Amino acid sequence: MKFVTFQHRGNSAVGVLVDDGSRLVDLTAAGLATDMRDLIENYDQRTAQIEKLVQERASALQLSEVELRAPIPTPRRNIFCVGKNYHEHAAEFGRSGFDAGSIGGTEVPEYPIIFSKPPSSVIGPGATIEWANDPYQSVDYEAELAVIIGRSGRVTENDDPMDFVFGYTIINDVTSRELQKRHKQWLLGKGIDTFAPMGPAIVTREAMGDISSKGIRCHVNDEQRQNARIGDLIFDVPTLIRAIGRSISLVAGDIIATGTPVGVGIGFNPPKYLNPGDRVRVEIDGIGTIENPVG
Amino acid sequence: MKFVTFQHRGNSAVGVLVDDGSRLVDLTAAGLATDMRDLIENYDQRTAQIEKLVQERASALQLSEVELRAPIPTPRRNIFCVGKNYHEHAAEFGRSGFDAGSIGGTEVPEYPIIFSKPPSSVIGPGATIEWANDPYQSVDYEAELAVIIGRSGRVTENDDPMDFVFGYTIINDVTSRELQKRHKQWLLGKGIDTFAPMGPAIVTREAMGDISSKGIRCHVNDEQRQNARIGDLIFDVPTLIRAIGRSISLVAGDIIATGTPVGVGIGFNPPKYLNPGDRVRVEIDGIGTIENPVG
Repeated sequence: MKFVTFQHRGNSAVGVLVDDGSRLVDLTAAGLATDMRDLIENYDQRTAQIEKLVQERASALQLSEVELRAPIPTPRRNIFCVGKNYHEHAAEFGRSGFDAGSIGGTEVPEYPIIFSKPPSSVIGPGATIEWANDPYQSVDYEAELAVIIGRSGRVTENDDPMDFVFGYTIINDVTSRELQKRHKQWLLGKGIDTFAPMGPAIVTREAMGDISSKGIRCHVNDEQRQNARIGDLIFDVPTLIRAIGRSISLVAGDIIATGTPVGVGIGFNPPKYLNPGDRVRVEIDGIGTIENPVG
Repeated sequence: MKFVTFQHRGNSAVGVLVDDGSRLVDLTAAGLATDMRDLIENYDQRTAQIEKLVQERASALQLSEVELRAPIPTPRRNIFCVGKNYHEHAAEFGRSGFDAGSIGGTEVPEYPIIFSKPPSSVIGPGATIEWANDPYQSVDYEAELAVIIGRSGRVTENDDPMDFVFGYTIINDVTSRELQKRHKQWLLGKGIDTFAPMGPAIVTREAMGDISSKGIRCHVNDEQRQNARIGDLIFDVPTLIRAIGRSISLVAGDIIATGTPVGVGIGFNPPKYLNPGDRVRVEIDGIGTIENPVG
């Protein structure tokens, strides 16, 4: 199933996309989920009721009648993010001179590089990436697969990390390259208001199937900049969940953005930064497309 | 005033310390605050009522009757933390070989280094720092002044950053040095469950007065390891608030741990890591003392 958070007649609600995404079934109106976190936390107990509702097409709305929001508009804590997690991107970032944590090298990280973006950075499909929030006009895009955690607790050696996965969505890990470089640790360069477009939907693990063959692409206006397969990740999803959950208790609703492939703006010489008027579109096979204007 | 969060007869509540900290006035029982975030968000409107209650010593409890918790037991998002923010500590950390973001240098950062610790890392006074959560037995202490934000929004050039300060508390920024080094970005080394002892109280800005003259000290068992003045900060509190709040909307209840002075375990050769059975005590003049066992 594909779950969305949407705004309809002034209220925020959770729904399931049906009929190839042209309509949705309103789970909030049906009393089955107050918001996405509530849905994720109680999914196992409500699956049968949700499936019944979907089959009946009860409380169905046209997608055109509603406004999509980020699937989790206000995460309960910062989004976990992964840096330098595709081989060719690790090389382009190392060459760019913007990697303060590297000695100019293009080396592949030996261990996952984990940082965070605060909840206040999240925006939904169509919302504006506020270019002026980067005082240095060095705004860059990063198309990423994001994992949505469905189970709370620590990940022990006996656990299958995939049991913690509720589903997947898309995050554009928008970055101020100048702030990322100046402040060494990446929170200030990555955590900027509106710099985490998320959506359009959360696709359950079962519906997504094998992720390794899925394509991930990013277009700026009509130019394709990134085009890779999720299977090219250096540290795969189970490895990332284990690395984080070994020492940090995961919480249902947690989000892990898994890193971006080659083709970001600073990979070009001179860098191709985003500018007001641009539109950034990220798509992942099986999830959909999220497009955001830069303003 | 000094505000605490405490557990009494199975309920969590907020109180004001009175009579030199031997008693407290229960604000939750008086209907003036459901929790610390509620108090911070509504402080201006409730100050007069709180002061009246305090004068009357209404609903007063003996401190010995209650169990103190972290003042904000579950922050709404990750704690903002500052790295290498005292001159001599920047030098000792650079020398230690554990600073993956430095080229072995002992240089002073040109811009504030900001990272985060997730809400799940927070524990209160007396709670155990779980040593086994660091798989590499490289647990280190970092005594820090923490700023509690009282006003939401971005910090514009015309704002006085100090207007965003509600008060101050203590955080021990406990760290796995090995994870901090391996993963380059510090979230995994710093964000571990139980690795953010916080408390014992939040002291309002007015009650704290000028912070620069206040002493900050850390003892491991009975050995003094850190002893500095808050005025020795490289980037002072207004500078930090401005650096973060320029691009990231602050939220009332946000926490900024301002960095640790010289004297951490890896400053010694060989490093003096924490071990099970140790007790770590951090004190800041005007705030109080927080002590936690390592177990």
